[in-house]
Amino acid sequence: MSSRPKVIGYLGPQGTFSEQAARLYQARLMDGQVLLQPFCSIMELILAADTGRIHQAVVPLENSLEGPVALTLDMLAHEVDLKMAAEIIISVRHHLLARKGTVLSDIDRVVSHPQALGQCRAFLQTRLPRAALVTASSTAEAAKAVADSGSKWAAIGNAAAAAVYKLGILASDIQDNRANATRFCVLGKEDCREPTGDDKTSIVFSPRQNRPGVLYEQLAEFAGRGLDLTRIESRPAKSVLGEYLFFVDIAGHKTAPDTAAAIAAVAASSSFFKVLGSYPRWKEQ
Amino acid sequence: MSSRPKVIGYLGPQGTFSEQAARLYQARLMDGQVLLQPFCSIMELILAADTGRIHQAVVPLENSLEGPVALTLDMLAHEVDLKMAAEIIISVRHHLLARKGTVLSDIDRVVSHPQALGQCRAFLQTRLPRAALVTASSTAEAAKAVADSGSKWAAIGNAAAAAVYKLGILASDIQDNRANATRFCVLGKEDCREPTGDDKTSIVFSPRQNRPGVLYEQLAEFAGRGLDLTRIESRPAKSVLGEYLFFVDIAGHKTAPDTAAAIAAVAASSSFFKVLGSYPRWKEQ
Repeated sequence: MSSRPKVIGYLGPQGTFSEQAARLYQARLMDGQVLLQPFCSIMELILAADTGRIHQAVVPLENSLEGPVALTLDMLAHEVDLKMAAEIIISVRHHLLARKGTVLSDIDRVVSHPQALGQCRAFLQTRLPRAALVTASSTAEAAKAVADSGSKWAAIGNAAAAAVYKLGILASDIQDNRANATRFCVLGKEDCREPTGDDKTSIVFSPRQNRPGVLYEQLAEFAGRGLDLTRIESRPAKSVLGEYLFFVDIAGHKTAPDTAAAIAAVAASSSFFKVLGSYPRWKEQ
Repeated sequence: MSSRPKVIGYLGPQGTFSEQAARLYQARLMDGQVLLQPFCSIMELILAADTGRIHQAVVPLENSLEGPVALTLDMLAHEVDLKMAAEIIISVRHHLLARKGTVLSDIDRVVSHPQALGQCRAFLQTRLPRAALVTASSTAEAAKAVADSGSKWAAIGNAAAAAVYKLGILASDIQDNRANATRFCVLGKEDCREPTGDDKTSIVFSPRQNRPGVLYEQLAEFAGRGLDLTRIESRPAKSVLGEYLFFVDIAGHKTAPDTAAAIAAVAASSSFFKVLGSYPRWKEQ
């Protein structure tokens, strides 16, 4: 019997930042048998991994300007039984894309996702003050619309979208704020069991609400052992207003004795608790 | 000279949950000279208070199911100089509204805000499985559309919208989850200077990122003094991925000696710090 290829899902269509993250992850796996498959929504993508239709899903988790992706966090906490096997961080670089031969002074319409249009406001106001701004459901959809149009349109999108839809790059790095990065996680039925020496562990918990200061005492389990928390994110517990879940990322693998002891203590003082997984810290290569 | 009436803004149109919150606040002010004015967007509403065009703005802050209103938090931190003078918490109760004389078996279309449709999914699936679901920009807009239509349509909205648009209530409390509450804040140039004996104080800060455990030490300033934190919410600092602002609510007025000392210590160890204000804890009357 020949082995079936592993399928990794991402948020499509082709040419999105999610596809760029999935390709980076695929390259690091060094497994020629891995296929990428686009999905139409984050919910569909996560459910496909949870039901085993795909091997893993590459899902957006947080952005440095927009904050957490609430749907991803809420599904991880409440709806699925999935582990984080990796993180991927990519810089969001926006370019102005147009059909080849078009010049900047021709452009009378700019199409993109509303967030991308918002993130390039200064460029649009100074360089294309008379262009109409039109929204699309993703930067890749915008690039496709420009490729299909006969007019003097431009899209805001990434270099991958330019390649997929055979567009030229009229202007590079047109975003207002250079600190625009998105963190993705790779979700599947297993996390990364073997420590690499530079790992992170993600947990989610809800402190027992019976007395003040419980969260502080829970954080003391980490601080007292010298464990660094790289992120604390709160989400509503969906029970009553004022009860929260906390998503905490800890520097270190869950099998390290100190980390394991801190996690066990937090689990014991929580009304809800899940280890989302241990995985190598992302490094640029 | 006669005194000009104070204007309090809210997120319109008439019949929204925001208007309901603004009316509750207006009733407690016991000032016959207060007028309410609807605004089209949260951004416009907050800017109107910041520039002094209106006296105060009633703005949504968080919902027990959906989480924080990111735009409100980000504008309070980064863009305006406003104080929280009050909080208002209302239960979100969804009803099925239709023109008078319509019965449930007539309904072939249900119009509402996508969140309201989502929050009433079980009712719609069991009681109106064949009705088409149509989205509107707010529950009040949905009620208006039903009032204007000649057909067998229904809206999901609140009792105030039924009154404003002269609709009947075909079914009450149709939401799946009863724990649906929204917390609003009242923003203006001044917070509530006089302690009432049961107050909260809201601050926002970004811990200095120079070493691990800073946030934990900052929380120790409250825990060590027996001060209860009723909420911790993180938002991206909008500088680099992994730096966060924390919105913290403390039980107690900022003028109480322990609270003042804890706040001063947190300010000293933060790269960014603001007191958003002290205000009475909301109580049902």
